[in-house]
Amino acid sequence: MKTPPGVDPEVFESALSQWRETIGEQWVFTGDADLDLYRDAYTPFRNEETEIVVAAALAPETAEQVQQIMRVANRHKIPIYPISTGRNLAYGGSAPVLSGSVVLDLKRLNRILEVNERNAYVLLEPGVSYFDLYRHLRDNGYKLWIDCPDPGWGSLIGNSLEHGAGYTVAPHRDHFDSHCGMEIVLPDGSLIYTGGYPPSVSRTWNVHKWGVGPYLEGLFTQSNFGIVTRMGIWLMPEPEAYRSFTFELRDEQYFPAVIDALRRLALDGVIDCAVHMLNDVCMLTILSQYPREGSSGETCLSEGMLAALRRRYMIPPWSFAAALYGTSAQIRVNRRLIRRALGPYGRMMFFSDQSIAGLQWGLRLLKNVKSLPPLRSIADSILRGAVGASVEVLETARPMHAYFKGNPGEYFGRYAYFKSDTARPDRDLDPARDGCGVMWLAPVAPCTGKDVTQVLDIGRPLFQKFGFDFWAALLLDSPRSMIILFSIFYRKTDAGEAARSRALYEALAAATLRAGYPQYRTSIAYMDRLWQDVPDYQNLLEKIKTALDPAHVIAPGRYGIGSSGSTTREPWTATIPSE
Amino acid sequence: MKTPPGVDPEVFESALSQWRETIGEQWVFTGDADLDLYRDAYTPFRNEETEIVVAAALAPETAEQVQQIMRVANRHKIPIYPISTGRNLAYGGSAPVLSGSVVLDLKRLNRILEVNERNAYVLLEPGVSYFDLYRHLRDNGYKLWIDCPDPGWGSLIGNSLEHGAGYTVAPHRDHFDSHCGMEIVLPDGSLIYTGGYPPSVSRTWNVHKWGVGPYLEGLFTQSNFGIVTRMGIWLMPEPEAYRSFTFELRDEQYFPAVIDALRRLALDGVIDCAVHMLNDVCMLTILSQYPREGSSGETCLSEGMLAALRRRYMIPPWSFAAALYGTSAQIRVNRRLIRRALGPYGRMMFFSDQSIAGLQWGLRLLKNVKSLPPLRSIADSILRGAVGASVEVLETARPMHAYFKGNPGEYFGRYAYFKSDTARPDRDLDPARDGCGVMWLAPVAPCTGKDVTQVLDIGRPLFQKFGFDFWAALLLDSPRSMIILFSIFYRKTDAGEAARSRALYEALAAATLRAGYPQYRTSIAYMDRLWQDVPDYQNLLEKIKTALDPAHVIAPGRYGIGSSGSTTREPWTATIPSE
Repeated sequence: MKTPPGVDPEVFESALSQWRETIGEQWVFTGDADLDLYRDAYTPFRNEETEIVVAAALAPETAEQVQQIMRVANRHKIPIYPISTGRNLAYGGSAPVLSGSVVLDLKRLNRILEVNERNAYVLLEPGVSYFDLYRHLRDNGYKLWIDCPDPGWGSLIGNSLEHGAGYTVAPHRDHFDSHCGMEIVLPDGSLIYTGGYPPSVSRTWNVHKWGVGPYLEGLFTQSNFGIVTRMGIWLMPEPEAYRSFTFELRDEQYFPAVIDALRRLALDGVIDCAVHMLNDVCMLTILSQYPREGSSGETCLSEGMLAALRRRYMIPPWSFAAALYGTSAQIRVNRRLIRRALGPYGRMMFFSDQSIAGLQWGLRLLKNVKSLPPLRSIADSILRGAVGASVEVLETARPMHAYFKGNPGEYFGRYAYFKSDTARPDRDLDPARDGCGVMWLAPVAPCTGKDVTQVLDIGRPLFQKFGFDFWAALLLDSPRSMIILFSIFYRKTDAGEAARSRALYEALAAATLRAGYPQYRTSIAYMDRLWQDVPDYQNLLEKIKTALDPAHVIAPGRYGIGSSGSTTREPWTATIPSE
Repeated sequence: MKTPPGVDPEVFESALSQWRETIGEQWVFTGDADLDLYRDAYTPFRNEETEIVVAAALAPETAEQVQQIMRVANRHKIPIYPISTGRNLAYGGSAPVLSGSVVLDLKRLNRILEVNERNAYVLLEPGVSYFDLYRHLRDNGYKLWIDCPDPGWGSLIGNSLEHGAGYTVAPHRDHFDSHCGMEIVLPDGSLIYTGGYPPSVSRTWNVHKWGVGPYLEGLFTQSNFGIVTRMGIWLMPEPEAYRSFTFELRDEQYFPAVIDALRRLALDGVIDCAVHMLNDVCMLTILSQYPREGSSGETCLSEGMLAALRRRYMIPPWSFAAALYGTSAQIRVNRRLIRRALGPYGRMMFFSDQSIAGLQWGLRLLKNVKSLPPLRSIADSILRGAVGASVEVLETARPMHAYFKGNPGEYFGRYAYFKSDTARPDRDLDPARDGCGVMWLAPVAPCTGKDVTQVLDIGRPLFQKFGFDFWAALLLDSPRSMIILFSIFYRKTDAGEAARSRALYEALAAATLRAGYPQYRTSIAYMDRLWQDVPDYQNLLEKIKTALDPAHVIAPGRYGIGSSGSTTREPWTATIPSE
């Protein structure tokens, strides 16, 4: 049996039996097969020898049980690593930062406690996924829309605590901004409600954000100061009308102008949703896997190959998707403003529920035609000539339209398979099972053409230098800031490619921070580097940690707070290019 | 000379001379006349004997000086009470919570360090007032609108840290929500930047709210954990068009329906501003002072007198003001939706810059006519018959229109004079100088007709019981919550009335909390009662306080955090009505 670092095996055995008493024998896991679930399946920073070890896993059913678990953990100084549903795709999966931790798996706290249609919020527990909530609202006929990230398998609370982002309008699109009210188990096992007063006293816990006194909720995000066991989340009332739209940039030279135009539209409230903007490689990874046949051993596409694929699928340099909500008249007015601002730079297509259904029908028809070889090229050229788009790109419209109205899916998770040796399944995606190698690194920049271009100009040559396809997606985080999501896909079965992907990650992280663009969240692989240049800030975090969690029992090392002990991670190997 | 509690006079003298060296002799105040400025001029909780004493006041010019001051304070355990511009009208003025504190007056940190028109924000220091910023933007031709509370004499940073509210659209109308990025001097004198990285490293400090790692900014609001010396504040780009509007409720019976309609309009984003809704007494206090002549010693208006005044000024049971921003087409569409939703319940008037100017001109003309006695009644009846409004009510349109476009003023501060013995001046309002007695108490409720009505139903009989006019203003805090602002005006020269006003405050605070409606901010008089029923929460706050400020040097007792020592306040005397 594994034991947590510095914990006597007998002491650990005694803690385990106390936990068994609290939550039941069957919810305390120590077997290898069970514990194998708690790992970071996507990372190149670990291999079989350096894999993070989990000493045990606990799956309580109630907040009271979480309290009792924490009291035992405190008594014996056993590190506990809470996860909600444990997805955290490409940022660390369900693996703890400190090897030997006990995972606290909150999947059984999966109750939707209240749906308040009048004030448009839900109160729920960490085990509730976007899929769960979506089905619950749909099946009960609530006129409320959720805002989901993709894929929709993750926890709403987990995503909010990580400052995740979605698709719809402010404040919903920002999953920290759209929450209101937390119930928190503190490291000592006490239970508090943010805002100061418990819901038995206060009727405003889930409707008024700041409470009275200091606003503490931010403290419990991207950190390890407590365990959130309930959260209120604001939802969007179903609008009278809804239109999604896509924009295809005509020419790369207009890119900065389009970013500046987007900012102005967002500042003026014309576009209020989280615009998603994809570069050519990003779009390609949605449409297909890496074409190994023609690649003769290279690990990234040559310029010629990329150009050919762009032509084949008719992929523009950048495409973006967004949506409008409200009454038909409101949408009409805003559509006109958007056309005026963006029209000169590319092509726009607007979609209603009806036109998406029609498109879907047409695409199915075309596919049937295409399966008859003689008609294939005719159908193709009709489509390409008349609509100016490929079947494959047009097929992305339906899932995009669904995401922007809060229907969770897993369509865009397809890109995780880009470098996988496994063929991408059409449904039941499981990148962990299927050996997908993927890392995300997401700096933030002021939303200006100049800043966003600069971040991309830092990224592009690094991807090239280390032999990877330059994948970038932009996310309009607020009218004033843009998240630049870099995805690094690597072949997990290729040790050399894995090593180069690590080097790229490190170089990218260092170069973007040096240029002034910190990450908006980060991977467990990077956490111990977060504060290396800001000792006063780290000191502040450590003081808070020590005050709330003197034995450092909750998630030591998470977001660089509290020592993560000696990690067995593969060493940082970055050769950061000098300027 | 006064000395802080528990501090040896010699030690204090030594601290003073160190401070003199740091910031210059002339910025260390110990004389009675100077220190007399730092008090709560409006409160009935203090009288001449129990007045809070200030041992000294320091007015540094830079954050570095603040750091040095804190190091000395820490060494000698001297309580420091930071204020920005020290207004905090009706919540405590510039008085410290702990008598004998040294006030740290940040008025000389009054620099506007950056105006970023592209990303629509400013970076400034705590001594900058709304008036200062407004003038700076106007004089330099920036196309940015600010969001001000009223009166506009206060500090933007101070108001944000107290979670103050304004008039325009989200997020600007919520002064905590609209800030981004803080520079903070910690109790030990170290200086940190929220988000983790200093602006010399990060280009996103003032554009991306959450930074990376835990979001700490909430911690430094309504608290005493640090001293904010710089803050980024997001501004609204000047919209293409702007319309303010007023609504007069036809009949009290429609009140809950109107609140529910407002919530739906706000949830749907049709109304995005901070709607201000005033009851009859509130409107009356704007229009006139308490009519002592006819009152034969009563301290509140009889039903008959109030009815007569309502008729005389044509005051509806409730009136509200709001505004629309955007292009003319956007405003037209939203105006139609608002008319459809609210039209059945009362009368609406929309104002453009042009129509406000025209109204202003007309009112001046009418006033001239009115000064000719024979024409007076004719003019009056024309106005009342044709427009259905009094000159006095119509005169409030211009300042209202100005507030909703972010022009700070002091017009609505007029009501502070309601019970003052001093005649209300037309300009240069100074309620502190003019002996105005006023207390604010502001519970929050879910934004539903039922909840808001319930809070009012709690308040009305208490005002009556203690002999005060029932003054209530509602502030649409978010689509899901409403601030109910109760003002208690009392005659400072009447000891009996002052005692009754205290009793009303206490009864109101207790009864609203008991019904589930906590305050959104509070007065220094109430702070030691905040956490009396939530020991675990208080314990959490104390742990953070002790970790960051072990000697409790910053503002002990503020928001009930850290002992405020033995106060000399008049004892709580509430006779809380039993149910």
